Amino acid sequence: MSNYFHIPSERELIERFPGVNLRTFWGDKVMLSIVDLNKGSVVPNHTHPNEQAGIVLEGKMELGINGKKRILKKGEIYVIPGGAEHYAKPHGESCQALDIFAPVREEYKY
Amino acid sequence: MSNYFHIPSERELIERFPGVNLRTFWGDKVMLSIVDLNKGSVVPNHTHPNEQAGIVLEGKMELGINGKKRILKKGEIYVIPGGAEHYAKPHGESCQALDIFAPVREEYKY
Repeated sequence: MSNYFHIPSERELIERFPGVNLRTFWGDKVMLSIVDLNKGSVVPNHTHPNEQAGIVLEGKMELGINGKKRILKKGEIYVIPGGAEHYAKPHGESCQALDIFAPVREEYKY
Repeated sequence: MSNYFHIPSERELIERFPGVNLRTFWGDKVMLSIVDLNKGSVVPNHTHPNEQAGIVLEGKMELGINGKKRILKKGEIYVIPGGAEHYAKPHGESCQALDIFAPVREEYKY
């Protein structure tokens, strides 16, 4: 991915889980992933060595990290240490977040 | 910064340039910086070894990277290689963006 500027609506979606769709963008050290979580969808509890952080862009998102749960509103921030167990789902209607991974998740390059 | 969850409105602002205010959040590998650019403000052309990426959260932002200029709208993404010259300013009224740095910018921890 060599371009400096990206328009997410021009990118295709990756369906990661049912109703959970990603659009990813990356440099050498960091990957950005716009994730749309449809109503009723779940990213089940999982871990990865990559550090993850992010911000809620639309709606409300329930996020659990190492057993601590929070309902995050638009504009709120999260930081998930590498290796920490975490899950996410929309709270109420659908939501959208920007996930950030360091290092880049090679399996999400497309 | 040990917490998983952060509410930006509860954090104090760092004035980085006149009319350019930051609120930063970080893990071990990545730093998030919500930057508010008031009307008429400028982040002048500069470089740093840290890779930078981001998304426009509100308004429109003019961004120049290595001599390539673009007006980015809300939701659009940018990726700035480490060492690349770049500047930013709001296009029209004020704007807000989320900047992401890897590695963490130690001088922005507070």
